[in-house]
Amino acid sequence: MSKFLSSKFSALTPYTPGEQPQDMKYVKLNTNESPFAPEQNVIEAAKAAAGSLNLYSDPECKKLVAKLAETYGVKNENIIVTNGSDEVLNFAFMAFCDKDKGAAAPDISYGFYPVFAAVNGVAFEGIPLKEDFSIDITDYLGLNKTIFIANPNAPTGIALTLDQIEQILKANENNIVVIDEAYVDFGANSAVKLIEKYDNLLVTMTFSKSRSLAGGRLGFGIASKEIIRDLNTIRYSTNPYNVNSMTLAAGLATLDNEEKVRKNCETIIKNREYTAAALKNLGFTLTDSKANFIFAKSDKIGGEELYLKLKERGVLVRHFNSPRIKDFVRITIGTKKQMDILIKTVEEIL
Amino acid sequence: MSKFLSSKFSALTPYTPGEQPQDMKYVKLNTNESPFAPEQNVIEAAKAAAGSLNLYSDPECKKLVAKLAETYGVKNENIIVTNGSDEVLNFAFMAFCDKDKGAAAPDISYGFYPVFAAVNGVAFEGIPLKEDFSIDITDYLGLNKTIFIANPNAPTGIALTLDQIEQILKANENNIVVIDEAYVDFGANSAVKLIEKYDNLLVTMTFSKSRSLAGGRLGFGIASKEIIRDLNTIRYSTNPYNVNSMTLAAGLATLDNEEKVRKNCETIIKNREYTAAALKNLGFTLTDSKANFIFAKSDKIGGEELYLKLKERGVLVRHFNSPRIKDFVRITIGTKKQMDILIKTVEEIL
Repeated sequence: MSKFLSSKFSALTPYTPGEQPQDMKYVKLNTNESPFAPEQNVIEAAKAAAGSLNLYSDPECKKLVAKLAETYGVKNENIIVTNGSDEVLNFAFMAFCDKDKGAAAPDISYGFYPVFAAVNGVAFEGIPLKEDFSIDITDYLGLNKTIFIANPNAPTGIALTLDQIEQILKANENNIVVIDEAYVDFGANSAVKLIEKYDNLLVTMTFSKSRSLAGGRLGFGIASKEIIRDLNTIRYSTNPYNVNSMTLAAGLATLDNEEKVRKNCETIIKNREYTAAALKNLGFTLTDSKANFIFAKSDKIGGEELYLKLKERGVLVRHFNSPRIKDFVRITIGTKKQMDILIKTVEEIL
Repeated sequence: MSKFLSSKFSALTPYTPGEQPQDMKYVKLNTNESPFAPEQNVIEAAKAAAGSLNLYSDPECKKLVAKLAETYGVKNENIIVTNGSDEVLNFAFMAFCDKDKGAAAPDISYGFYPVFAAVNGVAFEGIPLKEDFSIDITDYLGLNKTIFIANPNAPTGIALTLDQIEQILKANENNIVVIDEAYVDFGANSAVKLIEKYDNLLVTMTFSKSRSLAGGRLGFGIASKEIIRDLNTIRYSTNPYNVNSMTLAAGLATLDNEEKVRKNCETIIKNREYTAAALKNLGFTLTDSKANFIFAKSDKIGGEELYLKLKERGVLVRHFNSPRIKDFVRITIGTKKQMDILIKTVEEIL
């Protein structure tokens, strides 16, 4: 750190993204990417947009906003488009938390939430999950904090029902509840239909998982027009041209492929259940994941050791070195072929 | 604004980007874009990257960082890559300013500086330019603030010499001096060669102007490794995957075209001198611009009226409605053909 860095950041520990090693070709099951390459129409749309890169992208993202509104049955004013959903999440921490209003999230969840809180000078409360890693919604009633819940949660994959989300929304009328639906398309129910009923709900989504655009960096938020206006105030005060024109075009084309996206999700769900069954046969314990990953531990081998031995053998999974989950690994669900390699490699290691 | 927005933002006025009207085809001379489309190798590189958009982009931007380091004769550790140079500028306001250390910039400069200050809760001092719109460097000696200077300045286009920049650096040893070189390739001298000598210098640059990639959103910063590390701490605490993989590929390919970029800049400079001479013939007063725009006023017509009448006739320029510069318009330099249309239209209006 330089002598110039503001003292408020002297203890800031940044987020650690999943590793992206370049040393060899791995079976890459560590960052919850889609195994399905983008469709040809998406590639062509990106290429066409590349031809006029000398001009700025549309800061209002008008076409994509309109298409997302149509896709989700909301109005244009209910949508904000961002540089990945990390950006809309950070905007929410900026806009709706401060030194007086803290943030709360499950203690085991997306590891970026406490970092967003720290970088924005916001007190963060990690609310312990129950012993079985499920959320006890009574912990979230009348919190007087801005609440962030990933649904399904990561890295557990466990989902709340819409009824449970409604109870949290009702009990926090004066606070925003952010439902982070990065993984919602793999088996949970979206809370988007609740935005008309609850003015304190912000749903965030990403094109990185079910829609195969992780490398494009495209996320969005859906909420009341007032919340979206606030988030846009932050966006226009930090980076108005936040999404490049190739990604805007690729996202728009992707929304023409909703049927294909749905089929890809079905494949992932099938492969998830297949992999979960195989690992259970090998003695693993798994959470009930509704996401494109599973969260598994074995009595025979520690989480870190399994992660390292898999990596040695060319299979990348993710291990989190924190007390309650150190016995687990998180395994992204890929193609059937990738999962067969994973299962076979785990067998060899055991 | 919603009832949830943090009170610290209640008076925040976002930046207003130049208009991007979609109602008709304009001769677009309002946002300082390049009139030259990207080269074919850039388009092909973007397309190739689109094929694997299902995978995350490299958060370390390794290949682009290495190529930029080679291009500018610095080490990899001296480079940070960002989502446009707005992002690295915002990171600099976050990292190197706070409630105790304010920011200073010329009062007439990039309109985003005071907005970055406001969104980050930083006191901002706009230091008046001299009557002729040049910077009086004695105003910047021993300021005890983080200093932001666009060189050449916008919207005036007037450049400082490296000797003047060194005087400011020497007189502010305990403060970062950010030299924003968005427009440096059109006739000013880059301060990059000074980073070895001054540990308080951060140079920011963009691919949006001379390198024809405005729509790709690609910027970067060059500084000591300690400053770059601080900026990366902020980046990894807000949005580690900040640049998408198509833009990384397009940027890398663009750096293979440096000779073409240089020729494009020469063309712009020639067209700038041509346009400036023509407007002077029509009685305009102009600043001595070293950028890809000119800043001009006429005794015969106000700045706003000229802007509106040009827009009616299909030519977009930019007008800033602030006291000292309201008589001026800022005109981006495009192709010879575009400039001939501009000149002819101005003649008609007068």
